[in-house]
Amino acid sequence: MALTELKLTNFPFENLSSEHVKELEAAARRARVNALTMVKLANSGHPGGAFSSIDMFLAVYGVANLNLANCNDLNRDYVVVSHGHTSAGAYAAMAEWGFFDAEEAAAHFRQIGSVFQGHVDRHVPGVDWGTGVLGQGLSAGAGFALAARANNFRNRVYVLMGDGGQTKGQLAEARRLIAHERLHNVIALIDYNSIQISGRTYDVMPCNLKALWEADGWEVIECDGHDFNELYLALKNAGANNKPTLLLCKTLIGKCGGAMEDTPEYHGKAPSDEIYFNVIKNLGVAEPEEFLSRMKAKRNSEIKFKGREVKYFEPDLATGTPFDYDKVADNRGAFGHALADVAAINKYKQGSTPILVFDCDLMPSVMTGDFKKICQGNFIQVGIQEHNAATVSGAAASAGVVSVWADFGIFGIDEVYNNQRLNAINYAGNKTVLTHVGLDVGEDGKTHQCVDYVGLFKNMFGWKLVVPADPSQTDRVTRWMLKTPGCICLAVGRSKLKPLKLDDKLVFGSENNYEFEYGKAVKLRDGNDGAIFALGYMAGAALEAAEILNNKNNLNVAVWSVACPLEPDLDALKEACRSKFILTVEDHVADTGMGAIMALEIARNNLGAKIKNLGVTRWGDSCAADAARAAMGLTAENIAKEFVI
Amino acid sequence: MALTELKLTNFPFENLSSEHVKELEAAARRARVNALTMVKLANSGHPGGAFSSIDMFLAVYGVANLNLANCNDLNRDYVVVSHGHTSAGAYAAMAEWGFFDAEEAAAHFRQIGSVFQGHVDRHVPGVDWGTGVLGQGLSAGAGFALAARANNFRNRVYVLMGDGGQTKGQLAEARRLIAHERLHNVIALIDYNSIQISGRTYDVMPCNLKALWEADGWEVIECDGHDFNELYLALKNAGANNKPTLLLCKTLIGKCGGAMEDTPEYHGKAPSDEIYFNVIKNLGVAEPEEFLSRMKAKRNSEIKFKGREVKYFEPDLATGTPFDYDKVADNRGAFGHALADVAAINKYKQGSTPILVFDCDLMPSVMTGDFKKICQGNFIQVGIQEHNAATVSGAAASAGVVSVWADFGIFGIDEVYNNQRLNAINYAGNKTVLTHVGLDVGEDGKTHQCVDYVGLFKNMFGWKLVVPADPSQTDRVTRWMLKTPGCICLAVGRSKLKPLKLDDKLVFGSENNYEFEYGKAVKLRDGNDGAIFALGYMAGAALEAAEILNNKNNLNVAVWSVACPLEPDLDALKEACRSKFILTVEDHVADTGMGAIMALEIARNNLGAKIKNLGVTRWGDSCAADAARAAMGLTAENIAKEFVI
Repeated sequence: MALTELKLTNFPFENLSSEHVKELEAAARRARVNALTMVKLANSGHPGGAFSSIDMFLAVYGVANLNLANCNDLNRDYVVVSHGHTSAGAYAAMAEWGFFDAEEAAAHFRQIGSVFQGHVDRHVPGVDWGTGVLGQGLSAGAGFALAARANNFRNRVYVLMGDGGQTKGQLAEARRLIAHERLHNVIALIDYNSIQISGRTYDVMPCNLKALWEADGWEVIECDGHDFNELYLALKNAGANNKPTLLLCKTLIGKCGGAMEDTPEYHGKAPSDEIYFNVIKNLGVAEPEEFLSRMKAKRNSEIKFKGREVKYFEPDLATGTPFDYDKVADNRGAFGHALADVAAINKYKQGSTPILVFDCDLMPSVMTGDFKKICQGNFIQVGIQEHNAATVSGAAASAGVVSVWADFGIFGIDEVYNNQRLNAINYAGNKTVLTHVGLDVGEDGKTHQCVDYVGLFKNMFGWKLVVPADPSQTDRVTRWMLKTPGCICLAVGRSKLKPLKLDDKLVFGSENNYEFEYGKAVKLRDGNDGAIFALGYMAGAALEAAEILNNKNNLNVAVWSVACPLEPDLDALKEACRSKFILTVEDHVADTGMGAIMALEIARNNLGAKIKNLGVTRWGDSCAADAARAAMGLTAENIAKEFVI
Repeated sequence: MALTELKLTNFPFENLSSEHVKELEAAARRARVNALTMVKLANSGHPGGAFSSIDMFLAVYGVANLNLANCNDLNRDYVVVSHGHTSAGAYAAMAEWGFFDAEEAAAHFRQIGSVFQGHVDRHVPGVDWGTGVLGQGLSAGAGFALAARANNFRNRVYVLMGDGGQTKGQLAEARRLIAHERLHNVIALIDYNSIQISGRTYDVMPCNLKALWEADGWEVIECDGHDFNELYLALKNAGANNKPTLLLCKTLIGKCGGAMEDTPEYHGKAPSDEIYFNVIKNLGVAEPEEFLSRMKAKRNSEIKFKGREVKYFEPDLATGTPFDYDKVADNRGAFGHALADVAAINKYKQGSTPILVFDCDLMPSVMTGDFKKICQGNFIQVGIQEHNAATVSGAAASAGVVSVWADFGIFGIDEVYNNQRLNAINYAGNKTVLTHVGLDVGEDGKTHQCVDYVGLFKNMFGWKLVVPADPSQTDRVTRWMLKTPGCICLAVGRSKLKPLKLDDKLVFGSENNYEFEYGKAVKLRDGNDGAIFALGYMAGAALEAAEILNNKNNLNVAVWSVACPLEPDLDALKEACRSKFILTVEDHVADTGMGAIMALEIARNNLGAKIKNLGVTRWGDSCAADAARAAMGLTAENIAKEFVI
């Protein structure tokens, strides 16, 4: 009988019967054959952990309210495979539960054009989070649980992990958040095979798992990771003590009844023909050679299973009425105000997507306090645990909320670059607000000067970045960001800014009917003697510089305000290049920021203009922001001075 | 009497006498006045933590074998102030112990041109590690202890921390390494004032400090952080139980006998005049107003104290004889071989700098196994704890060893970008070897494809990056790197490569007398119809493409091999630009790599050539490296095809 006929979802039985166990054991044998065949055919992969985890995968995907029919819904259980390299085991077990054809996965593992990638990926139905970099999975689980809670869903979140990666610090951060938020519906499982690449875990880097998880507020249940009834009961009872639960599952690495057991050798190596044939014969394949050659032929044939489309979650929100800032104000305050305004409008509005706001102990600085007053329960204090915050906010965004994490730039991207990269890979669609970017952080000095955010985001695929020029633009960008699908970063400085005005009207105000359009540069001033492009809050200084050039040098210089440095506005750039000289100004590393990206387009398109990039060229000083910028040459006077064609 | 007359170094007394304590308490009052004056004059800073830590600073800088005379030596105690924002307290306490003039520090805190930055910095004598981003200090301490051990020094390493930041995951990683390596000379102190920005630590994010540190193998001693004799005794007895020791020091935030105590308000805020005058009067300043106006005048006068020059440590090593690879081989193997060769040569050589090699459970892949065989004790297994490894290897490098950390690219830079940034800020001089960079990682897929390392390093100041073309060049670069001061990254792929040959000679071999010169591109082929620049191991494909263009299109195209993408070889670029068309090829994001950096120079210098950048333009596939590169257009055939002027 197919395993799919066995219904274990939501624990219908008190115990598993011996018949149930027999079915599961038969499935486990089939799954092991398929998993090992994947590794054999691809001649790469991780059979050791796949085999020690496979029974846990079968148990979890069996009991979880997650199947091919509901896996694209929001209201159902979530499963995270944090040790993504055990993908062969996960795929083989999922196939038994009907997510896709087992031999299709077995044939096309780690093959170009196949969704069955080396590390589990969301294009495979039933995979809720693409992993591979260890230590992030539990945070993703926390994100799913928080999103479910905000939507009033009562789901469970299962997170499976290896033991070697338990030493990653982010795990401790996630443990604490889950316990503190009382997410007792999170169930973690550790494949405790005690072996990693370099040997026994207790030799490589001892990690007192039970004591550490308990100290962080978890219930720890030890069980046999190859005993289906033990797993079933432990999973069933998880959370009963009003704590999140860890199942510490004792397992045997490479478990297959053969030569691959209990050795680090097969952590990441395909077996020889001899070992492969031996193992699958033991597992019940009558004609191993014939089986392999059939599967080889299948690998060389067309890939039929295309997986699922992965899309960004599309929030449903009313974004309210834009607000004009006519007086001196800070962009971070304008963000906080717009966020609170949108939150208030949607709080009691039927069908609005919930907004979750994450904080790492910086609320008074990042201006999310007004939101907290309005939506106390959706304000999540993550503590000083930025890696965790990055992944939690990412996973939550993919699971049906608008997820906003506001932090100093240095923490929101520099500290967590790889987490934000994984968010992009996962189509997370999270919103990260970087405050205090640039030298604008001021006295905190170089360790806190996030002068590289444009350059960092430019390295990834999938992020949008907006750096507004003044509070009125920040207001519009914030409202746009909250309702727009995708991974979006809003970057703002710390200082108060004069509103940008032309002809006594706010450039980004209602009187001008300004609407934010991603990617579009805004011309602040016409001129044929060259052009200045200014990133975000440097627009004011650029305009002043143009005035100086006009008055002192009789030069008529165009000024452009750029809010979207990652994708230059080519029309604006081409227009400006006719003047043959472009000066770029930004509170950012001059070699990697907006100006560098524009230079790239000029050289690629051979636009024939010379470009000069003003920006940060060394670690900045610890002093007031204006002084730090002045020392770096980022004043109106110096911009004018540097305008030498 | 000046506190410097009280000699506490290395614990000369069984107990502190009441006279000793009186002296220290008087110093503590002076230090508090100076610390608060710093914050008052700068109108920014962190008085709360400065005041709760100041007695600990006085105790530690008193007992440590660290003073103005020996602070540039290698053989002495180390002190890390991990909660760098408490700088005002640290500076004030250090001044009492004679590192510099107290009023000089008080006057010029957080002022441009002053070494007394907002977060402690190595330009201040007595500061061993610049911090500010929380959670990295204990790792730095581990690095100092490992460097000392490798040099047969018997020093102590003191690491002072706040309590809010104890939730950072990297701390747990550092704890485990220190315990596992039996670094019982590391003494950690936590300023346990129980308050952080958002409130009480146990409300913001509970963290069971005693249980967690004990579970990771530490001895925990609780003591009063304001009682000098308790501190003295606890510090004296630390390590006696053959464990690393944590002093959990109960303190009062803002402790000053006044209105700033026990509140988060003054975490990062300057006091009003009224509070300032009140507090310093309580602390013994008879005429507060007069004192402040004198100090204000001093702040506006010349900065006299220039701090110390911070330089990269200069290793002393024999680098042996370069090795020629005439057959197919991998760059990572050539690195491992050269590393082991240099290690063997220097192992018994009088005066050679020790080499420490760090591993994160990937030795068989990153090829450091031969080194381990030769220098077992200097091979440090950090486990799967990359953030810790990055900082440990950084701090060790600054303290008298050649420090090499080899890891997959994705772990050595993407995962730890901010740690490597702090290493650069600290003039660490560590060597990071990234293996498996680019799509060359193959089947592990997008989560493991480090296609952004050039772009990431370009964002920082101080890193050198070398991407060799073949094993013979890798051999030379490895030997050069090991003896060269500075932060240097060597990036290599995974695949085996054909040796680069011209006229039947190895391009980078002995017969050609090739010597590696940082920044210099190597011309592999002459031609006037355009030029191809290839990064690292793409040189072979570029040469093949040029042959195709010659044979099929009758084009004569120059080919350049680039190993140093961060600083383009301007002479080579200018020469190539004469041909008006440049094609760049790299296994790296096309928008941020070598080609983008060259485009920047072309546009800045208006060199009049068109550039086309081939590289990675989306997340790559999970399949064999060749197939992944082919799908991205990175084959000789496609390079030739894209050569369309």
